Amino acid sequence: MAKNTKYDVLFEPIKIGPKTSPNRFYKAPHCNALGVERPGAQAYFRSTAVEGGWGVVNTEYCSIHPESDDTPYVSARLWDDGDVRNLALMCERIHDHGGLAGAQLWYGSKHALNYETRVAPRGVSQVPSDYVPYQSCTTMSKRDIREIQGFYVAAARRARSAGFDLVNVYGGHTHPILHQFLEPFYNKRTDEYGGTLENRARMWLETLEMVREAVGDSCAISCRFGIDTLRGDLGIKAEEDGIGFVQLADHLVDLWDFVIGNLEWGEDAGPSRFFKENFQRPFVEIVKPHVSKPVVGVGRFTSPDVMIDAIKSGQLDMIGAARPSIADPFLPKKIEEGRFDDIRECIGCNFCVSRWAVGAARIACTQNATAGEEYRRGWHPERFSRAANAEADVLVVGAGPAGMECAVVLAKRGFRRVHLVEANSELGGSMRWIPRLPGFGEWGRVVDYRKVQLDKLKNVEVILEATLDAKKVREYGADIVVVATGSHWAEKGINGATHEPIPGADASLPQCLTPEQIMVEGKRPVGPRVLVYDCDGYFMGSALAEKLAREGHAVTLVTPLDQIAPFTQYTLELPRIRRTLCGLNVHVVTEHTLDLIESGFARGAHIYDSRKIATWEIDSVVLVTCRNSNESLFRDLEADPDALAREGIRGLYRIGDCVSPRLIADAIFDGHRLAREIDSANPAVPLPYIREYRVLGRRDAEYDAVLDGQKVEARSSQIRVSISK
Amino acid sequence: MAKNTKYDVLFEPIKIGPKTSPNRFYKAPHCNALGVERPGAQAYFRSTAVEGGWGVVNTEYCSIHPESDDTPYVSARLWDDGDVRNLALMCERIHDHGGLAGAQLWYGSKHALNYETRVAPRGVSQVPSDYVPYQSCTTMSKRDIREIQGFYVAAARRARSAGFDLVNVYGGHTHPILHQFLEPFYNKRTDEYGGTLENRARMWLETLEMVREAVGDSCAISCRFGIDTLRGDLGIKAEEDGIGFVQLADHLVDLWDFVIGNLEWGEDAGPSRFFKENFQRPFVEIVKPHVSKPVVGVGRFTSPDVMIDAIKSGQLDMIGAARPSIADPFLPKKIEEGRFDDIRECIGCNFCVSRWAVGAARIACTQNATAGEEYRRGWHPERFSRAANAEADVLVVGAGPAGMECAVVLAKRGFRRVHLVEANSELGGSMRWIPRLPGFGEWGRVVDYRKVQLDKLKNVEVILEATLDAKKVREYGADIVVVATGSHWAEKGINGATHEPIPGADASLPQCLTPEQIMVEGKRPVGPRVLVYDCDGYFMGSALAEKLAREGHAVTLVTPLDQIAPFTQYTLELPRIRRTLCGLNVHVVTEHTLDLIESGFARGAHIYDSRKIATWEIDSVVLVTCRNSNESLFRDLEADPDALAREGIRGLYRIGDCVSPRLIADAIFDGHRLAREIDSANPAVPLPYIREYRVLGRRDAEYDAVLDGQKVEARSSQIRVSISK
Repeated sequence: MAKNTKYDVLFEPIKIGPKTSPNRFYKAPHCNALGVERPGAQAYFRSTAVEGGWGVVNTEYCSIHPESDDTPYVSARLWDDGDVRNLALMCERIHDHGGLAGAQLWYGSKHALNYETRVAPRGVSQVPSDYVPYQSCTTMSKRDIREIQGFYVAAARRARSAGFDLVNVYGGHTHPILHQFLEPFYNKRTDEYGGTLENRARMWLETLEMVREAVGDSCAISCRFGIDTLRGDLGIKAEEDGIGFVQLADHLVDLWDFVIGNLEWGEDAGPSRFFKENFQRPFVEIVKPHVSKPVVGVGRFTSPDVMIDAIKSGQLDMIGAARPSIADPFLPKKIEEGRFDDIRECIGCNFCVSRWAVGAARIACTQNATAGEEYRRGWHPERFSRAANAEADVLVVGAGPAGMECAVVLAKRGFRRVHLVEANSELGGSMRWIPRLPGFGEWGRVVDYRKVQLDKLKNVEVILEATLDAKKVREYGADIVVVATGSHWAEKGINGATHEPIPGADASLPQCLTPEQIMVEGKRPVGPRVLVYDCDGYFMGSALAEKLAREGHAVTLVTPLDQIAPFTQYTLELPRIRRTLCGLNVHVVTEHTLDLIESGFARGAHIYDSRKIATWEIDSVVLVTCRNSNESLFRDLEADPDALAREGIRGLYRIGDCVSPRLIADAIFDGHRLAREIDSANPAVPLPYIREYRVLGRRDAEYDAVLDGQKVEARSSQIRVSISK
Repeated sequence: MAKNTKYDVLFEPIKIGPKTSPNRFYKAPHCNALGVERPGAQAYFRSTAVEGGWGVVNTEYCSIHPESDDTPYVSARLWDDGDVRNLALMCERIHDHGGLAGAQLWYGSKHALNYETRVAPRGVSQVPSDYVPYQSCTTMSKRDIREIQGFYVAAARRARSAGFDLVNVYGGHTHPILHQFLEPFYNKRTDEYGGTLENRARMWLETLEMVREAVGDSCAISCRFGIDTLRGDLGIKAEEDGIGFVQLADHLVDLWDFVIGNLEWGEDAGPSRFFKENFQRPFVEIVKPHVSKPVVGVGRFTSPDVMIDAIKSGQLDMIGAARPSIADPFLPKKIEEGRFDDIRECIGCNFCVSRWAVGAARIACTQNATAGEEYRRGWHPERFSRAANAEADVLVVGAGPAGMECAVVLAKRGFRRVHLVEANSELGGSMRWIPRLPGFGEWGRVVDYRKVQLDKLKNVEVILEATLDAKKVREYGADIVVVATGSHWAEKGINGATHEPIPGADASLPQCLTPEQIMVEGKRPVGPRVLVYDCDGYFMGSALAEKLAREGHAVTLVTPLDQIAPFTQYTLELPRIRRTLCGLNVHVVTEHTLDLIESGFARGAHIYDSRKIATWEIDSVVLVTCRNSNESLFRDLEADPDALAREGIRGLYRIGDCVSPRLIADAIFDGHRLAREIDSANPAVPLPYIREYRVLGRRDAEYDAVLDGQKVEARSSQIRVSISK
């Protein structure tokens, strides 16, 4: 397709100090929990985005010294030659694709737990962290300040050795020490590093100067700055210290990288449930006029028109993105080629963030099943090899997220014919109705993207409103059958907490409702008072509570878990959910089971004190207790292998929730995985992947030597990279 | 010292199937979060216990297949040849020291999140996990059962290849699938694998049989069995299915390894705050008479007399221990040699567990600073090299945990003279009074052990009731000075949540109290109604609430955190704390700040809804807000380096809470670390350690090849083990 000149502004090169970015796309620093632990995956994950057109690609936060060790969270590190060597592969690959590589330097002070190194961090003032209350710090002396600045310089030099083009002197999210000096919330000093803005900025300004002096000829200096920490007078306000700091530092910086918020960083990585695209614009517009250097900002940009508006209006000089670049590493290329409807737009669910936030779980993405799999499984987001058995006809039963994804990938792998058969009149499975929950509109992109792809792929036939039983499947004429029939919410209250149904729970009664009954069938609660019982712990309970409260019900949200929607602490949605429910006067009851539902009331008990019986006067109960697979079709087919063979069916598989109810991202991954490996020896079992763990070599007996003395010295050893079997 | 024949029974060999343990000491399977990630540390940590006399030493839970991946928690794995190779080093070192090595086979089913592999687990019945509500499973078909049993067999064979002597077919804590089949709470099946005890036991019995057939000639088969899951009729009760199962399985097992409890496994790894030594005895005594094979059990055994009683009374045949073996890997040797007062007794704080439980943080121990450091820092728990500068005199100021530990290690490293000077009339610092909190008695062992060591070391002089200022320190005559003056609780309410003092908080007033004022000075709350404000999040707030409630006060416990004592979820103390507070009618208020203290009332607000003002009518407030370092002595000394030099002081260091208030374990570690490295080039900065991360080799460009096809194949590569600088 011809290039649309309207978007040319996004593809103009831009000078960043001594470097030039080929275009305006900046893959912002973001966690992936690959970092120091999985260097191959790190290199391939990041560099794939350059292949897809991102001009600048950054690491996540790189610890500059063992004094700042974020274990159990996984960061990158620039501690030693090994780190340099690992990150060099990332830089090389980025350069091979014509992009610039950036390293984000980080010393976390009291926000870093140092569970690996066990060192006490140094900080601006000795008060425990607001993020991790078990960690404090020692108040830095002036000598300490010089030493920490020395760490920054040494790490910047290592970044240069690794091949980085940009060194990001990070101070966003209140995470690094440089920001903590700047913000009065943290800085209680009375010396020349505390008090006035000039004093509070001194640590950061000096560090910028030293880093520039050390590497500024060979690297551009970028600066991620939290221009507003959203906490009033003790924080940084855009219109006060936000402007004030950039005026002081502008001459030391080649590129400004603006973010907002504090350690409750869902205000920066705003989930779509609560934030719209380019939501940071009002903050950026306050500060931007006061700098002379190019500015990059973020805001879940996925729309080319919003991007060009941001550039043309002078809001930004580069389009920063973390999540949109994960969901679609090829977003810039697709814009350049005018393939707008091929963009796999981020849905803002923050599943990607959740992997890092649970600690040590590698990145993954709801929309992009290949994210984080580039190296270990060899998956490319846009390239699909022709399947060895592509001459076959495949029948996929069920067009939910897993079934749609599987059909798309099978078709891209060149199968002669892929039939995607759906009982409903619409594609999407549970994603037909989840996007109608309050705030969940963007989640509909899961279906939208795949619908477009299915439409374009000539070898896919989508058949709606066709219910297949085992006999019909067998007689369909397919060579391979994939069952993707999804799951449904339990109707009698069975749940993980008790593993039993709840007496009185029965969705065939008017006063008991499942999520599908409310959202699909239109069943309404009887009476004004509704109890939502949430054993699920992710979004459904709170979303239905919100919906029903907005519709005028008096809602009590009960959970046996210690928190409402605990999983959403990892997706950064929790604080906003809590505030929303507070604002709607939803009565929240945690740590209580629901033990009995009767007409007009329900009864439960405190999980830590069974004497404490709670009785709720309510009219209806919404059962968000657990999901069960719709597996009868698969079970019927599986039960008669001879009948399958007679009809020439060579493979029977199932994917998604129909195997086990799971997160949408995992259901999509499952469909993708099967299609990628449909021509392996046993497609039902995933192929091994590169684990990237340390495997001891034969010469490791040499390590005995380290016990003999206090000194640990470098030793070389043969280590083989091992592959799981 | 002569061997005491009274304890001979502990040193009698015992036959375990085809193998013989040299004695009755069994280092039970326990997590260390080294597992698959840090194979060198794993091998050295485990084998050090054999050197110290433990006859059998086990791995933690070893995942038998990628379908059971506990990411973000770190387990051991027996997936492939690399795992075999890594664990072989552990086995070799265990054999070198004359012990037996055991591997614990684990398939976690729905309790495993599979965040690395992203596979759906298979389970007994499809209900979400009671442990991780976001994970469910598919209900196993009979073919699935055979496949999972095949995983057990393959893993057992790999264990044999690695050199293991015992294969533990694990079913404790409801963690593995074998147990989940057995327990009616999980097993809802109606086929021959569900219903009666015989049916529910079938999966496990068959697996035992298959594993025995596969490796039973060359390996002993041990079986960890949760004999009572403490949840009534749906669970396993010792007197019913506990007895019933061992009767069915006894002929398939060479060693029974009994535990109790469910996934709330603080009931098994019972913290000393709530459990006494050998607390599992009543359960074991119910089941033991029904087996013919030797039995090992756990119960935080540290007392040789309790151990011999357990053996002689027929309760147990072997003494199992996890935590006591971490606190003192040389416990058996010390009993054998009659060095009873040298035993470093576990204090039951479960700090060790907390490291695994946060996910991916390596093991550490309050009592034993060398735990987990054997490999990466080359520290041995009982061997200390003579310091290069041992001719010096060292002055340690402050005899809290850090100061005592440092003095002991310095003395063991041969320093001519170590002076340990303490202002108080007793040794211990904060550990003088923390053990007087309700339930904390065993924590006093931190001081007891070190007191004994100090008494024995001829080159240490302990001076009590001597307060040193900077001048006195300089003139003391020491060559090296270590400041270990600890920390104190804040008196005006400064805290991590707001980073500000609390209006009205002032411990000089009668109605405001700090923990030290209550525990050391004997200050009493005025009036019956007490508010404890806990911003600390570990044990202090709940312990003081408990103490004051027991003394008859009406206690309200307020915290800005989302849970009371959130850190204690990692030490497994949380459920018992919650139950205790419920039982004492302590009114718990989470997610609220305390914003104002006035006479007769206090005021706060909900952290998610500032409109929601809370007012508490109270008489006194206990301020558990934060600790600050007692650093004035260090600052005074540091300020005048010339004065130090004039007095011949060549080194000035500080350790423990005086640097930054921290966990007791970390303070002790800090004192130990300084003493271990006091003769390094710069003792203030820790020496580098072996990081055991993957470092890419020069030939890693070869990995590009994996992108070209779907198949990932093993490739060899030169990888250097790197050392942090």
